[in-house]
Amino acid sequence: MPSGEPCTSPLELFNSIATQGELVRSLKAGNAPKDEIDSAVKMLLSLKMSYKAAMGEEYKAGCPPGDRAAGSHSDADAAKASEDFVDPWTVRTSSAKGIDYDKLIVQFGSSKIDKELINRIERATGQRPHRFLRRGIFFSHRDMNQILDAYENKKPFYLYTGRGPSSEAMHLGHLVPFIFTKWLQDVFDVPLVIQMSDDEKYLWKDLTLEQAYSYTVENAKDIIACGFDINKTFIFSDLEYMGQSPGFYKNVVKIQKHVTFNQVKGIFGFTDSDCIGCAWWKISFPAVQAAPSFSNSFPKIFRDRTDIQCLIPCAIDQGAQTKMSASDPNSSIFLTDTAKQIKSKVNKHAFSGGRDTVEEHRQFGGNCEVDVSFMYLTFFLEDDDRLEQIRKDYTSGAMLTGELKKTLIDVLQPLIAEHQARRKAVTEETVKEFMAPRQLSFHFQ
Amino acid sequence: MPSGEPCTSPLELFNSIATQGELVRSLKAGNAPKDEIDSAVKMLLSLKMSYKAAMGEEYKAGCPPGDRAAGSHSDADAAKASEDFVDPWTVRTSSAKGIDYDKLIVQFGSSKIDKELINRIERATGQRPHRFLRRGIFFSHRDMNQILDAYENKKPFYLYTGRGPSSEAMHLGHLVPFIFTKWLQDVFDVPLVIQMSDDEKYLWKDLTLEQAYSYTVENAKDIIACGFDINKTFIFSDLEYMGQSPGFYKNVVKIQKHVTFNQVKGIFGFTDSDCIGCAWWKISFPAVQAAPSFSNSFPKIFRDRTDIQCLIPCAIDQGAQTKMSASDPNSSIFLTDTAKQIKSKVNKHAFSGGRDTVEEHRQFGGNCEVDVSFMYLTFFLEDDDRLEQIRKDYTSGAMLTGELKKTLIDVLQPLIAEHQARRKAVTEETVKEFMAPRQLSFHFQ
Repeated sequence: MPSGEPCTSPLELFNSIATQGELVRSLKAGNAPKDEIDSAVKMLLSLKMSYKAAMGEEYKAGCPPGDRAAGSHSDADAAKASEDFVDPWTVRTSSAKGIDYDKLIVQFGSSKIDKELINRIERATGQRPHRFLRRGIFFSHRDMNQILDAYENKKPFYLYTGRGPSSEAMHLGHLVPFIFTKWLQDVFDVPLVIQMSDDEKYLWKDLTLEQAYSYTVENAKDIIACGFDINKTFIFSDLEYMGQSPGFYKNVVKIQKHVTFNQVKGIFGFTDSDCIGCAWWKISFPAVQAAPSFSNSFPKIFRDRTDIQCLIPCAIDQGAQTKMSASDPNSSIFLTDTAKQIKSKVNKHAFSGGRDTVEEHRQFGGNCEVDVSFMYLTFFLEDDDRLEQIRKDYTSGAMLTGELKKTLIDVLQPLIAEHQARRKAVTEETVKEFMAPRQLSFHFQ
Repeated sequence: MPSGEPCTSPLELFNSIATQGELVRSLKAGNAPKDEIDSAVKMLLSLKMSYKAAMGEEYKAGCPPGDRAAGSHSDADAAKASEDFVDPWTVRTSSAKGIDYDKLIVQFGSSKIDKELINRIERATGQRPHRFLRRGIFFSHRDMNQILDAYENKKPFYLYTGRGPSSEAMHLGHLVPFIFTKWLQDVFDVPLVIQMSDDEKYLWKDLTLEQAYSYTVENAKDIIACGFDINKTFIFSDLEYMGQSPGFYKNVVKIQKHVTFNQVKGIFGFTDSDCIGCAWWKISFPAVQAAPSFSNSFPKIFRDRTDIQCLIPCAIDQGAQTKMSASDPNSSIFLTDTAKQIKSKVNKHAFSGGRDTVEEHRQFGGNCEVDVSFMYLTFFLEDDDRLEQIRKDYTSGAMLTGELKKTLIDVLQPLIAEHQARRKAVTEETVKEFMAPRQLSFHFQ
């Protein structure tokens, strides 16, 4: 859950702050218009906050960061991190246990969502934290405390998330960030913008513009079926919306001006030897994805206010979560699956942490840590006590693999069926309404 | 005067054609909607035409071009061309005579504007060719015959030109492409779109968005003062218009998809060792500059028609033309200069092809080929007979340098004064009208 600014290498960030500081001084010296100065100061503060978040210490003029910095990519770091690799296009690990997320947090310079933060969210919203928070499924954040400061002071913020629309039926795992985003929208009662990056899909897939846009519409139906409030949610296609917002493209070039190639390289992790065609896209696209985190990209919603903070719920990967078996792509639970297909996929493909025989299982117990069905239950079974009981019973051997799988099937079948019923109710007209640039209803000071 | 498509290296172009051909076949096989097939076929034909223009022979499937190709950049070519270097940002020559444009034509794979083509333009329009054509000032084209074919068959085309707005007062040389474009608009009676690439200026200069836009407005006044027809001319700021046109951004991504890094590199001439920050801009910007050559970037003007050809008048450089003395930047004739300043600049700075003494000049004559005042007269003195008489008299020694300079001053003073009077009459309101996305009046079949 990073907010606002893209992250950067500490030295680049340091240099950006110095440059921005000079700009502010020269604007002030030249008696520039107030809004111009304000805007430059805002950018300066934002850069300083990013610096503090990345470095764990305040920016100090004249003291550039050394190599010790979290987030800097030395060769040694690279070697240490070589077993895990995560960038926006790849999630790769050589460890059987999966990605080491604690290490990633250090690499990305973000912070862990700890018990203290979860308690604060509960106090601020007066709502029980979502199971995704309680169970560490959403595990990392940047500047979430700043969002909560604003919220507690009745200052506005908004949510921004997105999806690269694809032709295939969406997987259950694709819904995870949307389920969490819907919860955030409900408990904070804030507006939400959802970017459908069909420009990206168009560039990289063998699609026409019309096909890319039609995937946007189809995927939007699944997103809408998650239950988003039409009065507080704006879904937009990059291909369409760039030509409908006076502020969007301006923010894209503004970001391009402030984020250098090296900063982008820092976040997106490609090397000088990377395919230069790929690099092209990788360099220009972040600005299109970052622009919606500035509120004046949405003048119909926020008018020309530039001071509204943005919280971005996002998933680092849906790798393990979407498939019953990593080696079989058809083992994913699709949102279009029938009850029978779900049953068959869970029974046939879900990797089991159970023993080879019932007798052994009763005697030694199963292993929840590697059991795919149990992992699915942590995502989709709401009842904490029941989940804990299952964990104990399966670990002790009191619960057999067949029973565990049956429990998961009983959770997934109605969940998918209800999603399908809601999706069926979403008409083309509903999608048009969600995608119309318009005022949203919310109460900001 | 290239039309439409950006140029590419022959092999890249060959591969693009092969890919596009496959797309057309698959669309046809899949019974895709007619407009989708038409659009793909149009792109295919356009690629094939570019191929023919570059190679001097038709595209032949399965026969990729060899190294013999005009426009291919082998090391040998590079070595031969090393004395001249022209790309969108630099015009450099080691020759005292200036850029060798014939060589450039070969390098860029464009064609020379020969007597035959000029005669055809005269027949088609029924108008005497502009002095810029008669005197070889606009010297190269791509596919101009195709535009004339269309025009003679009452098929529509439009003009597209542009300017990167800057804060400084514009030079006389900056007006050259606009003077020629106005003539084209008058004789062909066609709509014109003028791109103010303030996004580019914003990215590269130390400017705020607001400053970049204000330069657009100021520069637009000088452009309007050239006499463009408000009913047939649309001036647009990239920063503003990207958010006002449903088609502009779609065309940008479409071009990004079809033009690879290597093609861009071919046109814009940077190397792998080029500053990567510069490369970033150089790769992404051509798409923004190429998009206006597709008519559906302007739905208010052309609705969603995609079959309207575009003619792009442009200057390869205004280097020599804008300055009286290459070494003194203040020696340019500015559009804001007084009659006195013009007189002083011509007398003081204009490099002379005359002899050291009046006696020598009378005896041996002057050299028009290197005389800056004479060069200016070829640009701005309309009367061919008088120009020829001056050439003869100066070459023979009958005309002295002071007389030549006086002739130029007498031409430039009223030209600049009249421009200033017209510019003064251009109000902010007029600029707004020119920049409002709207219908233009023209008669297309």
